[in-house]
Amino acid sequence: METRKIYIKNTLSGKKEEFKPLVEGKVGMYVCGPTVYGEPHLGHARSAVTFDIVFRYLKFLGYKVRYVRNITDVGHLEDELNGQGEDKIAKKARLEQLEPMEVAQHYTNLYREMMARLNILPPSIEPTASGHIVEQIDMIEKILANGFAYESDGSVYLDVAKYAEKYQYGKLSGRVLEDLLHGSRALEGQEQKKHPADFALWKKAEAGHIMQWRSPWGMGFPGWHIECSAMSIKYLGLPFDIHGGGMDLKFPHHEAEIAQSHAAFDCAPVRYWMHNNMMTLDGQKMAKSKGNFISLSQMFSGDHPLLEKSYNPVTIRFLVLQAHYGSTIDFSNKALQSAEVASGKLLKGLKLIDDLTADEVVNTETDLSAQILSTCERCYEKMDDDFNTPETIAALFELLRLAQILKHNKGTISKEALSTLQATYRGFLTDVLGIIDESSSQDELLPEVMEILMEVRKQAREQKQFAFSDHIRDRLAAIGIQVKDEKEKATYEFDRN
Amino acid sequence: METRKIYIKNTLSGKKEEFKPLVEGKVGMYVCGPTVYGEPHLGHARSAVTFDIVFRYLKFLGYKVRYVRNITDVGHLEDELNGQGEDKIAKKARLEQLEPMEVAQHYTNLYREMMARLNILPPSIEPTASGHIVEQIDMIEKILANGFAYESDGSVYLDVAKYAEKYQYGKLSGRVLEDLLHGSRALEGQEQKKHPADFALWKKAEAGHIMQWRSPWGMGFPGWHIECSAMSIKYLGLPFDIHGGGMDLKFPHHEAEIAQSHAAFDCAPVRYWMHNNMMTLDGQKMAKSKGNFISLSQMFSGDHPLLEKSYNPVTIRFLVLQAHYGSTIDFSNKALQSAEVASGKLLKGLKLIDDLTADEVVNTETDLSAQILSTCERCYEKMDDDFNTPETIAALFELLRLAQILKHNKGTISKEALSTLQATYRGFLTDVLGIIDESSSQDELLPEVMEILMEVRKQAREQKQFAFSDHIRDRLAAIGIQVKDEKEKATYEFDRN
Repeated sequence: METRKIYIKNTLSGKKEEFKPLVEGKVGMYVCGPTVYGEPHLGHARSAVTFDIVFRYLKFLGYKVRYVRNITDVGHLEDELNGQGEDKIAKKARLEQLEPMEVAQHYTNLYREMMARLNILPPSIEPTASGHIVEQIDMIEKILANGFAYESDGSVYLDVAKYAEKYQYGKLSGRVLEDLLHGSRALEGQEQKKHPADFALWKKAEAGHIMQWRSPWGMGFPGWHIECSAMSIKYLGLPFDIHGGGMDLKFPHHEAEIAQSHAAFDCAPVRYWMHNNMMTLDGQKMAKSKGNFISLSQMFSGDHPLLEKSYNPVTIRFLVLQAHYGSTIDFSNKALQSAEVASGKLLKGLKLIDDLTADEVVNTETDLSAQILSTCERCYEKMDDDFNTPETIAALFELLRLAQILKHNKGTISKEALSTLQATYRGFLTDVLGIIDESSSQDELLPEVMEILMEVRKQAREQKQFAFSDHIRDRLAAIGIQVKDEKEKATYEFDRN
Repeated sequence: METRKIYIKNTLSGKKEEFKPLVEGKVGMYVCGPTVYGEPHLGHARSAVTFDIVFRYLKFLGYKVRYVRNITDVGHLEDELNGQGEDKIAKKARLEQLEPMEVAQHYTNLYREMMARLNILPPSIEPTASGHIVEQIDMIEKILANGFAYESDGSVYLDVAKYAEKYQYGKLSGRVLEDLLHGSRALEGQEQKKHPADFALWKKAEAGHIMQWRSPWGMGFPGWHIECSAMSIKYLGLPFDIHGGGMDLKFPHHEAEIAQSHAAFDCAPVRYWMHNNMMTLDGQKMAKSKGNFISLSQMFSGDHPLLEKSYNPVTIRFLVLQAHYGSTIDFSNKALQSAEVASGKLLKGLKLIDDLTADEVVNTETDLSAQILSTCERCYEKMDDDFNTPETIAALFELLRLAQILKHNKGTISKEALSTLQATYRGFLTDVLGIIDESSSQDELLPEVMEILMEVRKQAREQKQFAFSDHIRDRLAAIGIQVKDEKEKATYEFDRN
């Protein structure tokens, strides 16, 4: 295993810290996955790509990583901040007259499919909230027993004021407790809470609520925050190494996870918190209400008024990686098209670099070995430095530039340096960054080659070489391509089904 | 919706019965899915294809089908008959030093991938046993409250003798209660049971058992049979329409499901029980110990000493469909290769039939319309008759034979009959049987088209039309195909990686 020093910007401290896993050589990582009540969109892609990179780089260095990413199929309320509102999945189910688990399954399948297309590795464990009711009830009972929660009319709330007597509430998000305790409006339907800042651990099911379980407090369903605490602790232990998610989850979701863990086990759950930043579209926040909300299938098909064309999954992946995960990204047709060109160049470089040969005698003046080796090292250094993918991409472009010099015989390289170059370039581009040529390039080529052949045939006809043009037509017919000469132009179609 | 009479061989009565869903136009179906501790194999394929066909045909007729297929990720003991032995998944996990849920996730992902390759539609809901502990505990408590189970040293068993006082035990499998009560050996470690025929609803976790949950009876895990009862009832209600599975599951698993449902709710769970038969390989029962156990990935790659070549998923699917689900199938290279040829013929027929044109004037002597319409009707009749896929395939071959007569202008067909032919042939082959051409035929075409283009270019060079041949070379270079003129002949290679 490579023993390199990795630095992670820990959202909890606001500082870059050296990453030291609890158990040498092993990493436990938990990332908040999707709520499966709608189409996977660009926001899902950014978070998934961000932590896919962490997963991939740690594995690349030889760590054994257990990566847990959950599926929220219950308990995510629409009015997240105040814990009120209708369960998102149940609402959608009623609209579609489906069993809520059928809706969840549908969108879970779609999410998995889209993630696979983005070349995101499946997590080691993909637990569902509805599948961990026992574990959530167990944890709530511990919090109640420790006096940090109270039951009220069949629901259970975390008592933020009580919690704050012993622990600091707001340490991750930087929220000030006083503001939270006094700033929140007392909303209707919150009468059961001692205080508006308290959040639900368990919610009583209203009559007709279609997702509910038996609990010590009657029929109900878990609050949104408790699932991630229960599932991360179950599969990764307490504490565990890395917890990731989108920046929008810092408060209340991750703040609540920290509180739940202290309240139940008197222990901070996570050693390194990582948060990816958000995305905009042409400078605007994406939102369904603004009509600039683009699903991943729309990106891949181009079927959206704001899109000039369809974009390959690898292009979207590359655009995400062109920014550091802590920065915002603006999606625009221009940025996507640049990403398409840039990723295409790096992919072409694979063959160019694989085809290079080492020089038996190095020319001390033009030898590039040292420069190439230090640029290879730079790929690692940039990833070690809080997973700085844009800088790693820049180093790959530099390697490609140097390789082109070698290709044109304007420099020399030693055998060892070449072998490092080849392994590093391919390793970082395809294994670490996960940029692969997804198009079977031959699929795309057939129409282009056919176009050339049809053009040749047209020229022959214009020059009245009919025997020749007929010969081409017959040869094509023999392999199942039917050419039809029409007034304007000749067309062709495939015979086979 | 087509209102046709469908007949299902109900394993419970041993007779073909007319299928009448509980709610008109809607069907609830539950099928026992895989235990995810190993590679998906041919047995999984047969069961999945069998019930995929039921799902597809009912949907084809316009039924709204909720199809639930579970994932057993806990509770399946190695010694199934006696409920002893080590939990299969936990054992594998210890061997591989993995979290058991990580093993389960790995094989679940593999199962889903293999099923997708076999063109098996994903079920509407795919619940996991570990995700329904609450529901299983609830049901066990009901059985206890009704007096049909007893607790013994932290485990709970169904009391078969007590159950048999009120209900018939063995009605599905035809087992005789007396034999069960007196025939079973009293095995070691079964001392907690009143009687060897009793089966576990909940098992106490031994020290160090890595999958366990809190329950009213202490830490433990559910018995294998209770999961299917709890999950089918949760998502489909009680009773529901169809329950499917392999014939080997009749006893004890499905018998136990019936008993659990009566014992908890005084109600038979299922109206139509369907069981698919088993498969042999070259006439031998498949088993890991016999070395003739072939996984699906081995079938697809050909990487097994008993396989002469690799077989496409569609070939395996077709071979399964060439037998009625109630018959055994023998897998052999010969049978697979015949299935490959036969499915290829039917697939080619799609284009042939789509390209037919109707006759304006029918020749009363040679008109095939009536014969074709009755053969189309036969496709439905055979599927209506307990999903008789081999007979449906025979009817499709007959349609293809008639279509070939039409193609050679040796018969006529009316416009209406042609349109029925086209819709029926495609509908049954691709939608109902799920036989699709998985090879992108265009992939194969590129080298053939390139050969023609290279030949054209060679001719041009022979005729000293160098500007023309250079133009072709440059056009190809522009799309990434490099032509090299060598002494013997010109060659080309692809630029892209």
